[in-house]
Amino acid sequence: MSDEQELGITESKQYNTGEWYAEVVQKAGLANYGPEGMSGFIVTRPRAYALWERVQGFLDAKFKSTGVQNAYFPLFIPESYLEREKDVVEGFDPEVAWVTHAGHQELEERLAVRPTSESIIAPYMAQWVRSHRDLPMRVNQWASVVRWEATETKPFFRTKEFLWQEGHTAHATHDDAWEETMTRLEQYESVYEDLLAIPVLRGAKPEHDKFPGAHTTTTVEALMPDGKSVQGATSHHLGTSFAEAFDITYTDVDEESQATHTTSWGLSWRALGALIMTHSDDQGLVLPHTVAPEQVVVVPIWQADTQEKVLEYAESITEELEADGIRVELDDRDERNPGFKFNEWELKGVPVRFEIGPNEVDDDVVTVVHRPDGESKEVPREDIAETVRAEFDEVYAKLYATAEENLAENVREADSRADILGTIGQHGGYVKAPWCGDEDCEAEIKDQIAAEIVMVPLNDEEAEIHGGEECAVCGDDAEETAYFAKSY
Amino acid sequence: MSDEQELGITESKQYNTGEWYAEVVQKAGLANYGPEGMSGFIVTRPRAYALWERVQGFLDAKFKSTGVQNAYFPLFIPESYLEREKDVVEGFDPEVAWVTHAGHQELEERLAVRPTSESIIAPYMAQWVRSHRDLPMRVNQWASVVRWEATETKPFFRTKEFLWQEGHTAHATHDDAWEETMTRLEQYESVYEDLLAIPVLRGAKPEHDKFPGAHTTTTVEALMPDGKSVQGATSHHLGTSFAEAFDITYTDVDEESQATHTTSWGLSWRALGALIMTHSDDQGLVLPHTVAPEQVVVVPIWQADTQEKVLEYAESITEELEADGIRVELDDRDERNPGFKFNEWELKGVPVRFEIGPNEVDDDVVTVVHRPDGESKEVPREDIAETVRAEFDEVYAKLYATAEENLAENVREADSRADILGTIGQHGGYVKAPWCGDEDCEAEIKDQIAAEIVMVPLNDEEAEIHGGEECAVCGDDAEETAYFAKSY
Repeated sequence: MSDEQELGITESKQYNTGEWYAEVVQKAGLANYGPEGMSGFIVTRPRAYALWERVQGFLDAKFKSTGVQNAYFPLFIPESYLEREKDVVEGFDPEVAWVTHAGHQELEERLAVRPTSESIIAPYMAQWVRSHRDLPMRVNQWASVVRWEATETKPFFRTKEFLWQEGHTAHATHDDAWEETMTRLEQYESVYEDLLAIPVLRGAKPEHDKFPGAHTTTTVEALMPDGKSVQGATSHHLGTSFAEAFDITYTDVDEESQATHTTSWGLSWRALGALIMTHSDDQGLVLPHTVAPEQVVVVPIWQADTQEKVLEYAESITEELEADGIRVELDDRDERNPGFKFNEWELKGVPVRFEIGPNEVDDDVVTVVHRPDGESKEVPREDIAETVRAEFDEVYAKLYATAEENLAENVREADSRADILGTIGQHGGYVKAPWCGDEDCEAEIKDQIAAEIVMVPLNDEEAEIHGGEECAVCGDDAEETAYFAKSY
Repeated sequence: MSDEQELGITESKQYNTGEWYAEVVQKAGLANYGPEGMSGFIVTRPRAYALWERVQGFLDAKFKSTGVQNAYFPLFIPESYLEREKDVVEGFDPEVAWVTHAGHQELEERLAVRPTSESIIAPYMAQWVRSHRDLPMRVNQWASVVRWEATETKPFFRTKEFLWQEGHTAHATHDDAWEETMTRLEQYESVYEDLLAIPVLRGAKPEHDKFPGAHTTTTVEALMPDGKSVQGATSHHLGTSFAEAFDITYTDVDEESQATHTTSWGLSWRALGALIMTHSDDQGLVLPHTVAPEQVVVVPIWQADTQEKVLEYAESITEELEADGIRVELDDRDERNPGFKFNEWELKGVPVRFEIGPNEVDDDVVTVVHRPDGESKEVPREDIAETVRAEFDEVYAKLYATAEENLAENVREADSRADILGTIGQHGGYVKAPWCGDEDCEAEIKDQIAAEIVMVPLNDEEAEIHGGEECAVCGDDAEETAYFAKSY
């Protein structure tokens, strides 16, 4: 196989989204599939792990500036602990990986590899929280969890092990817990909108789809170009149900024992899946400068007689960008021609390319090319670091605008069962419809086209139901506005 | 139990080191023991995890500036993969936690929870390395690993699950791999000496104690105040043995296939154990400012009539330090007296305390107290942030000097078996002795006082054996200078 063939993306994003996605992930060097006997696991290669590190750094700084502390809890959870959390164990039981032996010994009690850690975090929080002075208590863990789902592997979207963070907090009042829930939801929104160039919708999950025992489950939802929604992250107001089950109580100012109000919230590497899926194209990966491992690639274009001056100019520019803290790569490989290099760096998702030939040197300029739209311009050599930051912002704005347009065009309204089915069937995207609140009405849609209610809006104005509206499915009085969509 | 009793350390570092250590870990809020049924596991509380984050941040920046990329490999390793690495599986077999079931299904092949990841990393590196242009390849992973040791738990020193990093690299030549091995060893040395205020010795493990198949295993060793050595981190030159076992080969410039020369290197949270053990005292934890979650605590001391002016002054100082990027805590709790606060922050290891009463306000000064020696001085209010940084350096220098003195006083020489046994028995510490290189001579010492050869120095001058020297144990010709010590 020649290098050229190896680099090219052969599948089409528009017509064959799943295969295209898998090909981008593999050819852009993001991930490999796990070993034989471990289908569903992936190896996260440095280029993808670097993306995760940027998501982690961005979010962790927000967490820390708002009172969150990181901690680390054991990887294993005794079966009896998982069982204390009955509702959850019902959910996870078929997906738990069980450690039954250590060395040559069988364990007395088998241990779950954590599918989520609240059943081991909650008992410790119960020990640590004693008085109202200990509240709020906020603990977060960055780790991997394992859920043995039998479905097809899709790197970052669906894997048996995935990286995530889970935060758990306890508060004195219901309102404090609600404020916490919304603080985290806003921070997740910011990850998508300010770091990944993906607009999201904020909403709440319908009653029947909440985290078991939760008062409210909130979500940010991102619309993929293929018309499916991705649940980007969730933030749960758990009320006092968790605190009561695990005895997370505190002594108030009057020396009375009170149950705390708790929250939990999590974001996984699915955010990387949404990033790759949203912006990339048939040339490969597309990344905003905020997360790109290389923000600029400098490609010198020379003939034998111009090599020296072109290289010298390209090197001085590279050094200037580096000194300014910009992640830049000078591709001065002798054995590759410029066309090959353009393709390779496009595949890898570098947002800005500098092309530098003898003309650029003579005119004291740089030719700047944007990924993904190929927009090209000459800019002065002077103040190049400042200029390139403006180019980054332009590229970011383009990526965001494209995604925003896709979202705006794909929120439609429907007022009947046929309309919901027809609209999603034809266009994908979100369909807003008045809904009675009954799970059965969602089930009817789900059975027919595998679309579900991904959220009800949190914005009061939008959520409001006007007198006399009827559920689009059953015709009973409507209680809420539901967003129906197919989802990842 | 009163708060005062809860805060006090009751064990003695000097006379009861093990119990004292466990008490400091617990009362300074660093870790709790794992749940019932999971002895050997610990819960790493935020104050300890923050220390780990600083170690990680310091080392990760060094790695990245020297060409290392992070990646993430699956938590599980198929048994057949572990078996390919025969020497290692012999070593880990009795310590492996096995996943045998997923959900309600028994797995066809059981999966090891990683005790270390080289057996899964190596096959992927073999795929990724093709040409000399791909070299050097450097991959690092930050993760937890599980080794089911039956010995007694000692938080951060001996736990069934621990946090660490493991780096794996491949190089074109033996010399490149040696340079890599030493680069990492120097970076580990820097973690101890420049971040944790602990001097270390650099050495190599004796032939029989090398990583299986390694060409050379290098180590940094730290001497604890109780006279035992801690293996602080290891860096292995693996030669071509690993590359040959896993087929990590490359095509050289002449299109010939060649085996790579590989290295691996790791540092675990044992570094936190060494940190706690080295500097702390009978009042609790002692930390250098480099890693302390709070670098300064400001304790205002007021009467009713001075409260307002004292608090205002304390707040303005706190704000000024914060604005300068110093981690500072103002302890303005009304319900606690200054003495209680002093004890609590001493227990928690804050390196610098500010005491601020009406006199300080009137004189426009601050009383500064160092942890651990209680040295106290008045400094001007002006330029307080600059002043406090100088105080940090002074405290750091004191901690380092104490540890260095302990090390210097506890490297002794011996030239006979009785001398080795007697010296270690009486003083602990290191005993340097000429050694023939035979494992049996170490075994004789080990059997009698559980001391072993922790290293042979890497420094050529020190390692050199002068003509005619004899092995202190058997009297045959000496080949090396061995450092005997008891170790953690």
